[in-house]
Amino acid sequence: MSSVVLLLSCRDRPGIVAGVAGWVSAIGGNIIDAQQHTDAQDEMFFQRVQFTPPLGSALTDLESQFAAVAIELGLTYRFCSLPYRPRTAILVSKHLHCLGDLLSRAHLHDASIDVQLVVSNHVDAAEMCGMFRRPFVHLPVEATANGRSTQEQRLAMELDSHDLDLVILARYMLVLPSNIVRPWFGRMINIHHSFLPSFVGANPYRQAHDRGVKVIGATAHYVSEVLDEGPIIAQDVTRVTHRDDVQELSRRGRDLETLVLANAIRAHVEHRVLVVGNRTVVFE
Amino acid sequence: MSSVVLLLSCRDRPGIVAGVAGWVSAIGGNIIDAQQHTDAQDEMFFQRVQFTPPLGSALTDLESQFAAVAIELGLTYRFCSLPYRPRTAILVSKHLHCLGDLLSRAHLHDASIDVQLVVSNHVDAAEMCGMFRRPFVHLPVEATANGRSTQEQRLAMELDSHDLDLVILARYMLVLPSNIVRPWFGRMINIHHSFLPSFVGANPYRQAHDRGVKVIGATAHYVSEVLDEGPIIAQDVTRVTHRDDVQELSRRGRDLETLVLANAIRAHVEHRVLVVGNRTVVFE
Amino acid sequence: MSSVVLLLSCRDRPGIVAGVAGWVSAIGGNIIDAQQHTDAQDEMFFQRVQFTPPLGSALTDLESQFAAVAIELGLTYRFCSLPYRPRTAILVSKHLHCLGDLLSRAHLHDASIDVQLVVSNHVDAAEMCGMFRRPFVHLPVEATANGRSTQEQRLAMELDSHDLDLVILARYMLVLPSNIVRPWFGRMINIHHSFLPSFVGANPYRQAHDRGVKVIGATAHYVSEVLDEGPIIAQDVTRVTHRDDVQELSRRGRDLETLVLANAIRAHVEHRVLVVGNRTVVFE
Amino acid sequence: MSSVVLLLSCRDRPGIVAGVAGWVSAIGGNIIDAQQHTDAQDEMFFQRVQFTPPLGSALTDLESQFAAVAIELGLTYRFCSLPYRPRTAILVSKHLHCLGDLLSRAHLHDASIDVQLVVSNHVDAAEMCGMFRRPFVHLPVEATANGRSTQEQRLAMELDSHDLDLVILARYMLVLPSNIVRPWFGRMINIHHSFLPSFVGANPYRQAHDRGVKVIGATAHYVSEVLDEGPIIAQDVTRVTHRDDVQELSRRGRDLETLVLANAIRAHVEHRVLVVGNRTVVFE
Repeated sequence: MSSVVLLLSCRDRPGIVAGVAGWVSAIGGNIIDAQQHTDAQDEMFFQRVQFTPPLGSALTDLESQFAAVAIELGLTYRFCSLPYRPRTAILVSKHLHCLGDLLSRAHLHDASIDVQLVVSNHVDAAEMCGMFRRPFVHLPVEATANGRSTQEQRLAMELDSHDLDLVILARYMLVLPSNIVRPWFGRMINIHHSFLPSFVGANPYRQAHDRGVKVIGATAHYVSEVLDEGPIIAQDVTRVTHRDDVQELSRRGRDLETLVLANAIRAHVEHRVLVVGNRTVVFE
Repeated sequence: MSSVVLLLSCRDRPGIVAGVAGWVSAIGGNIIDAQQHTDAQDEMFFQRVQFTPPLGSALTDLESQFAAVAIELGLTYRFCSLPYRPRTAILVSKHLHCLGDLLSRAHLHDASIDVQLVVSNHVDAAEMCGMFRRPFVHLPVEATANGRSTQEQRLAMELDSHDLDLVILARYMLVLPSNIVRPWFGRMINIHHSFLPSFVGANPYRQAHDRGVKVIGATAHYVSEVLDEGPIIAQDVTRVTHRDDVQELSRRGRDLETLVLANAIRAHVEHRVLVVGNRTVVFE
Repeated sequence: MSSVVLLLSCRDRPGIVAGVAGWVSAIGGNIIDAQQHTDAQDEMFFQRVQFTPPLGSALTDLESQFAAVAIELGLTYRFCSLPYRPRTAILVSKHLHCLGDLLSRAHLHDASIDVQLVVSNHVDAAEMCGMFRRPFVHLPVEATANGRSTQEQRLAMELDSHDLDLVILARYMLVLPSNIVRPWFGRMINIHHSFLPSFVGANPYRQAHDRGVKVIGATAHYVSEVLDEGPIIAQDVTRVTHRDDVQELSRRGRDLETLVLANAIRAHVEHRVLVVGNRTVVFE
Repeated sequence: MSSVVLLLSCRDRPGIVAGVAGWVSAIGGNIIDAQQHTDAQDEMFFQRVQFTPPLGSALTDLESQFAAVAIELGLTYRFCSLPYRPRTAILVSKHLHCLGDLLSRAHLHDASIDVQLVVSNHVDAAEMCGMFRRPFVHLPVEATANGRSTQEQRLAMELDSHDLDLVILARYMLVLPSNIVRPWFGRMINIHHSFLPSFVGANPYRQAHDRGVKVIGATAHYVSEVLDEGPIIAQDVTRVTHRDDVQELSRRGRDLETLVLANAIRAHVEHRVLVVGNRTVVFE
């Protein structure tokens, strides 16, 4: 553990910054970075404080030492350590550009994720997983009455059995049921291939083409129980023209999706994201 | 008239480019710029040909000379002349940034529009119109049973009585009825303060804030009978963060709206826009 | 005065955030926003703290009350008040788009500057100043041996005689001598029509065209004694293609210049800019 | 061969579009896409015509058939076929993000290059080449008097002996001598990690940081005999702030470099690039 991140939120009131900074100072920590955000409309205060803890102090020590301050100031908070390299499952279907990018980044130490397994309803990803020596689990949907629910049960078991910290839906084209999504809220990131809330659901590039938009986008968000409605972590866009047919929109979108997902994951593993209702505070 | 623009569309088939270029060559014209677009899915062909006509030839001459070619190739087409400086009405409510920008550009010869009148349901724009010596017409909505329809009738009369070529809705906050919109299709441009199709209707910045998007946009489109559904001419976007409240989104959006509207008008007056169903081809 | 901004810098060391926040808390102030930046390489710390002061306290009171903290922590600092509406001179030559935009924004209360005078070596801006009822001073360069130095002396006198807080070079095409520039360092903002450090000096769009770049830019910076070398406040860029000749680059660049200058001025008047050597920290 | 691309340039004069389109029509070809560009300043005309050739016609047939037209119109031209998948060498040093991206794209059929070999002065790329089963050639520079020139000779031999169509410098950190560069002009693409012409040479992110720019960029260009001065094919940029130190600029720049290089290669293999002096025309 090289540094500690304290993420907190509370009703806005005077004295929070001083209280928190004073506590870090009092325990012998040194603040490396502090960012705050005040939501004037909702009268809420949010802060991310990154500090070097005193030698030998554990996260649990800090938490118990901080409890009194937190109660006094009415804080909701959590402590996290850096560097963080979450045990991660990547779910994917047939489009492999995000998977390839994440495996390549992890290989080059450019993404701080420890890919424990890759799960897919198709076999296409098997070869790439072999190349990067990552375990691949094929969970096809059988064409039977309860093929889908059986597959979902097996998926839930896979996710449960690997002591995972993070699940990434890297163009996984099946909608997950609430019972899978719910326990992972805030730790399951999806990349949607449109500029949400435009073009929810299937075939967003087709929808974009039919509407004749001049800009397309991609959105990475925490998965919630309502499809494509979870808190947005990152979005980006690129200009398109009438020359771009659906296939070309998809091709250009792939580069967008890849980058937006990578950026969202980076924000997550650096403990820079606070979920606030259905929105996020993403510190820089 | 320094040059002529021929805008055409037809079912795709061999020989169109050669046929059109051959005709221009045959009448002694010189092609300055030619752009084409083939929509493979719909099997349609679109072209914009800009050429210097032979000395002394009028637009009507060219049209009649071209008729035989057009019939042979099955073309839908129109001829336009450049430079073009349409007689324009600007409709506005209380937000005056687009109006100020357009008047300033027109004054500096950076927007090729001849502003014949500015119409508003509020008085706020009167002062700026005075400064730029443009006629201002105040059409308030009276708080009576038929106040709205009376205002709409007066507006329709204003638009009819000035021999206008173009109507610009520069943040005009009243929805226009079909009978006003219909005759102006393809010649009435609206700026909507969101990245359509996200956030149709009222208060798009409030909607954007509540959804927690990380990018906001603005959209200029030809007005059709369905609110915010007309063919998009231009869009642009800018990144935002959790720090930006609704007021700040609106402020940043103003600069976007101003630029997107100016760019759409430029494309229109340069005869670079072809409406295709509910989409546009915008040549460069 | 609705709030106070404290801008400070110092060698990085533990306890600064706590010390400053504790002081604000102790005098009964309430921190609205606090942003900090640590430059690990140079071991420097920078902070912007915006707070509501206790009722009735003047800037000078705060400064004297803070002196002991500042000495203890080794801080360089200044206090500023918000809202701030600096008495401003705008210098301009023949290109008037930035001037028109700034006057229009000031008129619409979208730029917090109080334009005391507009100075130009050409007469072109006179009409626009008349429209916006802003004093215009024509300082032509006479075609005599010492025409340029005479004009510079008159300019220096104009700048000295209006109790100005800010000077904006809004496409003023004459290089200012050091004796004029020096006293205004940190309060004189220039817009350069290229993405500095590319294309220093004259005709940057011509230079950009000749180099065949695919992106052009604009740069707003504090003016220093070395031409186009001062600390950069804001930059933005736009894509171009081989289709864009020098004239079109200039046209597209105008919109860039206008926006970049407006954004730099906004950062300046909101006391969000700290100059650090030849760089800036621009808080959000 | 599914289609043919004709790239041509000539002094601008009337009748070229008609002449070329007429020829395609006459031989029974069908134009799929035609784009042209007139450089008014230099009075030059450039065109890219993509057409479906008559069944069974070879490129050499078309060339000989076209010769008469070309002579009559004074055209410089070349015919190319699509799809095109050039035999490619990738040169790389220690930074492997561009290499990883290109190998991954080629593997996923998202980049139309046939990677014949990867050459490096370091061993770092060997593992990744192994994963993607691409031949890796290690050409270290020995620490001897003529170590560098020996390495260059071996490199020249490698490039000569594989019947290559394209050489990609994907962050190859050694400057190549003229005798290697010259024969590959127009077929050797380099990615430079700055927004050229800013920050030529070594350590551009360090240079960018020291200048305090607010935007960084990447540039893909054909390699010419003058370092970082060749014709630019593609550029892109991203915003940065004072928070980004050199390491973070480098990290963010990697994503830029990767995309810009991939886009430049796509333009090249789709025969959309015409070199004009030290500039390029990049058709869309």
